Amino acid sequence: MKNLLVAQSGGPSAAINATLCGVVEKGLADKNIDKVYGAQNGIIGILAERMVELNALLSNPQSLQLLCQTPSSALGSCRMKLSHWEESTFEFEKIISIFRKYNIGYFIYIGGNDSMDTVHKLSEYCRLRKINDICIMGAPKTIDNDLMETDHCPGFGSAAKYIATTFSEIACDCNVYALPAVTIVEVMGRDAGWLTASSVLGRINGDSAPDLIYLCEKPFSVDGFLRDVREKLGEKHAVVIAVSEGIKNEAGEYITDCLQDRTTDAFGHKILAGAAKYLEEIVRQEIGCKVRSVELNLMQRCASHVASAADIYESRLLGMAAADYAMAGGSGKMAAIKRISTKPYQFEIEFVEIEKIANQVKTVPLKWIHEQGNDVTQEMIDYLLPLIQGELPCTYENGVPVHFRLF
Amino acid sequence: MKNLLVAQSGGPSAAINATLCGVVEKGLADKNIDKVYGAQNGIIGILAERMVELNALLSNPQSLQLLCQTPSSALGSCRMKLSHWEESTFEFEKIISIFRKYNIGYFIYIGGNDSMDTVHKLSEYCRLRKINDICIMGAPKTIDNDLMETDHCPGFGSAAKYIATTFSEIACDCNVYALPAVTIVEVMGRDAGWLTASSVLGRINGDSAPDLIYLCEKPFSVDGFLRDVREKLGEKHAVVIAVSEGIKNEAGEYITDCLQDRTTDAFGHKILAGAAKYLEEIVRQEIGCKVRSVELNLMQRCASHVASAADIYESRLLGMAAADYAMAGGSGKMAAIKRISTKPYQFEIEFVEIEKIANQVKTVPLKWIHEQGNDVTQEMIDYLLPLIQGELPCTYENGVPVHFRLF
Repeated sequence: MKNLLVAQSGGPSAAINATLCGVVEKGLADKNIDKVYGAQNGIIGILAERMVELNALLSNPQSLQLLCQTPSSALGSCRMKLSHWEESTFEFEKIISIFRKYNIGYFIYIGGNDSMDTVHKLSEYCRLRKINDICIMGAPKTIDNDLMETDHCPGFGSAAKYIATTFSEIACDCNVYALPAVTIVEVMGRDAGWLTASSVLGRINGDSAPDLIYLCEKPFSVDGFLRDVREKLGEKHAVVIAVSEGIKNEAGEYITDCLQDRTTDAFGHKILAGAAKYLEEIVRQEIGCKVRSVELNLMQRCASHVASAADIYESRLLGMAAADYAMAGGSGKMAAIKRISTKPYQFEIEFVEIEKIANQVKTVPLKWIHEQGNDVTQEMIDYLLPLIQGELPCTYENGVPVHFRLF
Repeated sequence: MKNLLVAQSGGPSAAINATLCGVVEKGLADKNIDKVYGAQNGIIGILAERMVELNALLSNPQSLQLLCQTPSSALGSCRMKLSHWEESTFEFEKIISIFRKYNIGYFIYIGGNDSMDTVHKLSEYCRLRKINDICIMGAPKTIDNDLMETDHCPGFGSAAKYIATTFSEIACDCNVYALPAVTIVEVMGRDAGWLTASSVLGRINGDSAPDLIYLCEKPFSVDGFLRDVREKLGEKHAVVIAVSEGIKNEAGEYITDCLQDRTTDAFGHKILAGAAKYLEEIVRQEIGCKVRSVELNLMQRCASHVASAADIYESRLLGMAAADYAMAGGSGKMAAIKRISTKPYQFEIEFVEIEKIANQVKTVPLKWIHEQGNDVTQEMIDYLLPLIQGELPCTYENGVPVHFRLF
């Protein structure tokens, strides 16, 4: 009999607890597993021996359901990368000794790029040291959808559904007055534009926003942007625009850095304003119509009340698959989604070498962005659509969603 | 046989179409009404004769249901006030002539303070000119909840439910890291703090946010704020704060104006940043921990996918009541909600003189704000709670809510 350990890492999402749920369910159901532990705050919690026994806390279906509708990491998270063992073996030795102390045979780490780096280093360390009785697996998570070797990432579908829903509602909001107005909505993503691209689904049922979409993969030209906005204002009075927070100019500099000069009249010094705020100022100065900016901010990653059923389902399955694979003796891989077909949507779960994933970023293919750089293609829509399907019943009390707290 | 006219005015909300729905349902059901017209963009659309016949468009239950889950004003809106008739009777004469042309016997105007000013002037003009065959009624709407003579305003409950839900989710999001961090969330409301106060309901099921609440009714002291934040950071690592966009200092100046000097290091010139952004910069400079700001922005008034069932129900009833009252010969009043009891929640609809409402603002009673000005009382919670109760089924297609378009 061995014990299973699970931990969460990286930025919050609406689905990371569904993956935790899948891992725990498998651990509880397996007769060869004694205890299921969760480490608080990821790898930091392992090093600090902050372990929580989850068996009793998560043994009833209602707790598991509430866990799945709770955004963010119920175990807490961290942003810590292990040093390389050639530089220092201290952290590795400490982790292994704690694993021994708690009789951990299986460790599942749920997270994004940095977390997969941890899985990679830890499993490599075990392999080199011939520690064969500890299996270490990764389960993906990131709203940014930028992990390699998986069709998409748990958490992305729910964020995309929130973004699409919000654009469809903002379309209604912005259309009410018969006056020219520009609304610039900033979506998360510094290096990958997947989330911004998902704004296109706001139009799927005939709502009018977004009118223009700018991803960080394609160089952003302020003059081209102003031309696009003027053209749209010639066609309709309310123009709604989606921009990635990470849009960059031809030289690869963030717009928020290189626009400092152009907006000197409005902003004297470098301030911590986002891309949309800068573009708002540019439109105000150069076009002069009513203009405002909106940041979807934290809401896009934690709005679990409008989570995608497809996303929560797949996230749970990936947690289960990672646990199963580890309990069968597998190590050093990440459970991933392979898309078999788009229409109808079909996928299977596969297990990919962790070194193909750690520290890399999957960006939006340029062929899925319009040549003019101000919209996305039908292929992008076809890719995105299955990921936001389905609504889940959400348990409310007192008119507010109920969340699950492990501690 | 006469015709009924309805129009919408002022800022969007998630419930103003439910009131439209109630008016139209009553108009369609009354055997003395021939046609139900909607004017596009409020009083402007009446003056421009942009009338839409609604009978066929809204005669089936599915359209009415979709209309109720569509945020913003389906008929479009405007921000126009009529001149006083002692200055110019032109607009009044024009409106009455158009009413005659379309055989309008009943006009229901749905909106906030400015719209009730229009109802007041138009009904007074008719009374003075002895035009007795045109009945003019107001139906309230404003997410700000600042209309006099009604316990609360349609649209407020849905905005409050969105705000409470979002704070409960942001609480989960902010608690993940074991590091000190401050999150400042700005809520709409320049003169009345009702929306900001509703953030308190984010705590109703045990979630931890907001930790501090600052309404615009009480003078805001930056030093007191910093003291509060430091004290909270002594108790817990993640501090979440709700602030009204309209917080003012002791002299009654907006914080966004008077903080310009204090933040000169960060902001050189006057910029169009909100209160939360300024406070973010203050916390960064004076406390130095991780800090970010979030604006709930348009989402708080258009997130109809998470509308309050109580709000949508009451909004529809108020539309029905205003139409009924007009069709029975009443004029110059607004349908309003009178709370009979809070536990259990009971209300009735009454009709109040429009001059008691037009151009006035109902602010949060100071006795419902903690003495220190950084939280609200149990009385406030008791007042708010009934208004956010119940969730409505929302029709989705392709994973995104469906909205109704009249044109």
